[in-house]
Amino acid sequence: MAKTHTPTPQSRGPSEHDIRDQIVEAATEYFGHYGYNKTTVSDLAKAIGFSKAYIYKFFESKQAIGEVICANRLSEITATVDAVTADTTSASEKLRRMFKALVDAGSHLFFHERKLYDIAAASASEAWPSVGHYEAHLKALVLDIVRDGREAGEFERKTPLDETANAIYLAMKPYINPLMLQYNLDNAAQHSSQLSNLILRSLAP
Amino acid sequence: MAKTHTPTPQSRGPSEHDIRDQIVEAATEYFGHYGYNKTTVSDLAKAIGFSKAYIYKFFESKQAIGEVICANRLSEITATVDAVTADTTSASEKLRRMFKALVDAGSHLFFHERKLYDIAAASASEAWPSVGHYEAHLKALVLDIVRDGREAGEFERKTPLDETANAIYLAMKPYINPLMLQYNLDNAAQHSSQLSNLILRSLAP
Repeated sequence: MAKTHTPTPQSRGPSEHDIRDQIVEAATEYFGHYGYNKTTVSDLAKAIGFSKAYIYKFFESKQAIGEVICANRLSEITATVDAVTADTTSASEKLRRMFKALVDAGSHLFFHERKLYDIAAASASEAWPSVGHYEAHLKALVLDIVRDGREAGEFERKTPLDETANAIYLAMKPYINPLMLQYNLDNAAQHSSQLSNLILRSLAP
Repeated sequence: MAKTHTPTPQSRGPSEHDIRDQIVEAATEYFGHYGYNKTTVSDLAKAIGFSKAYIYKFFESKQAIGEVICANRLSEITATVDAVTADTTSASEKLRRMFKALVDAGSHLFFHERKLYDIAAASASEAWPSVGHYEAHLKALVLDIVRDGREAGEFERKTPLDETANAIYLAMKPYINPLMLQYNLDNAAQHSSQLSNLILRSLAP
């Protein structure tokens, strides 16, 4: 005879989702305060009031939690970049705003949320998927902007689109990649603006 | 009555200079094999067959020895860059060759003389004068090339020379600075060539 009142997967789903969110939120705060590298899942469990085993039901490792934190933060940055670039029709202005928004977001993370910056740096260092997705999104955005600028007659059309977009991404990368940004924070706003000027001159028709 | 046969400073000079050279040469080999960070002046003294006190007569610290090793190696790289750029009259070609020579030298150091690369990285991290001089030399070279290219009608003349040269240096820097180069070694030759193309397009009259 079949048991009654067994929770169905459907009904457990949302609740599991909520608990995952709760763990990620608590972990963001905890890692943001004590640092990702110095914290264990046991420390985190104790702070949230869950057992370590219970957390492992939802995340297979500390890195799995770090991945979600990192992906959330990078999503916020790409949302900001998407918003500032959507707000103008000029391709040149889109490139300028994109670069500026990335430098601002990276600098803010470094100077005001250093412990979360360190998670992003770990992510870049160990090539977690979150940073891979982030870089792919930004590369695709550069390519879209250059293509639009070409179609609008704003940019030159003689060079191969892929190579040109990639070179622009490479020029921006020292201010995007957390491992490299730490060496470029002095005068980052001024330097990235000078690089924007160089990039835009290279795109002149 | 004055003593006779007291060595004059002049006669001691060359011999002190020789001993300094001898220490630097031995230290280059020793650090190159065992690593700079893991080696003490005592280890080095033992390997050379000098007393630690004797080495301290010539160098006030391990860093002072590292400085000379680093400066020597960076001088070799700038000599190579100077030679490859002197060999052509085209300013565009000078910039391309300069960038390529720097990427080749940095990659060689990383892959074949990793322990010496680590000294250069320490030098960049702690802002030793040797790396400061190196960067200043390369910045000045970029400025000279851009100025010559403007005078020859090869490059545009509308933008401020200083800012333009600085932006070019910034685009090259991830492949020059040892701390950043380590993150840019994948496809470094191809990527730096794409950046050269971007830089040269930005300089078109």
